[in-house]
Amino acid sequence: MQLKRHDPGKFLSGAVEANGFVFLAGQVPDDLDQGVRGQTEQVLAKIDALLAKAGTNKSNIVWANVWVADIRARDEMNAAWMAWMDPKNPPARATVEAKLANPRILVEIACTAAK
Amino acid sequence: MQLKRHDPGKFLSGAVEANGFVFLAGQVPDDLDQGVRGQTEQVLAKIDALLAKAGTNKSNIVWANVWVADIRARDEMNAAWMAWMDPKNPPARATVEAKLANPRILVEIACTAAK
Amino acid sequence: MQLKRHDPGKFLSGAVEANGFVFLAGQVPDDLDQGVRGQTEQVLAKIDALLAKAGTNKSNIVWANVWVADIRARDEMNAAWMAWMDPKNPPARATVEAKLANPRILVEIACTAAK
Repeated sequence: MQLKRHDPGKFLSGAVEANGFVFLAGQVPDDLDQGVRGQTEQVLAKIDALLAKAGTNKSNIVWANVWVADIRARDEMNAAWMAWMDPKNPPARATVEAKLANPRILVEIACTAAK
Repeated sequence: MQLKRHDPGKFLSGAVEANGFVFLAGQVPDDLDQGVRGQTEQVLAKIDALLAKAGTNKSNIVWANVWVADIRARDEMNAAWMAWMDPKNPPARATVEAKLANPRILVEIACTAAK
Repeated sequence: MQLKRHDPGKFLSGAVEANGFVFLAGQVPDDLDQGVRGQTEQVLAKIDALLAKAGTNKSNIVWANVWVADIRARDEMNAAWMAWMDPKNPPARATVEAKLANPRILVEIACTAAK
């Protein structure tokens, strides 16, 4: 068994590789002045960057968990998601509402990719 | 690496196969006039159908995430779950409360199965 | 395909092994008189015990989902997490707020480890 960790920090790693999968930590935006769509775009850019570090990409995502601070805003999240997602390779996904680390964080996404 | 996607849609796939696992999208009921037990039965039937498409079945589920719109109704969810689950092969599972896509959706379940 | 289940119960198994991974059920504390830090310590001890039964350990955790009943208490959760986590092997993780099975349960953690 070979584990490989990317962007390790004090509490968590940005991504962990194991047995042909890459597990990403929940990604949140940095610029919290943006709305749901802009925050989602930031999150998806972070996901792209982590997947690239792990040698894979969004076309290989198998599962994503999306948390939105207000479920009524999920159309805005989905607008950013649709513009980003590989239309030939949609992942399995679940979207639910949850309060996130900071009241100004409107969206968080974690995902698992194959590699 | 070989990925296989079932029921691909605009936002997500119903299920994705990779490396000996099948990842299912969060399943929600169609008939929202039913209560928690009936909605859970609908969700579990959808899970059975997706697992069958992916060549596996409920006895091979390794992990399930259950979201209920009201955690106090989890006994009703569990009644449907117990009647459905293979008693010789209970999966690992977590159940938490979350607001779901529509206020009338009372339960959503995502799961991962081996195949 | 070989599945192995640990601590199987009526609704779920404590852990399920499949294809080089161990999937743990959401763990909750037993002594609900404790605060967030003490409850988190209990949860992490249960995770250690289940991982040991499955022949692995916390250094091999690839992913953890933490639910806290009040997101504002996550620093207390993190204090217990930091004291426990293998600093050379931080897992990917997401932490969100959710109402849990009992209003006195303040934290629940599920995780996946490689083995």
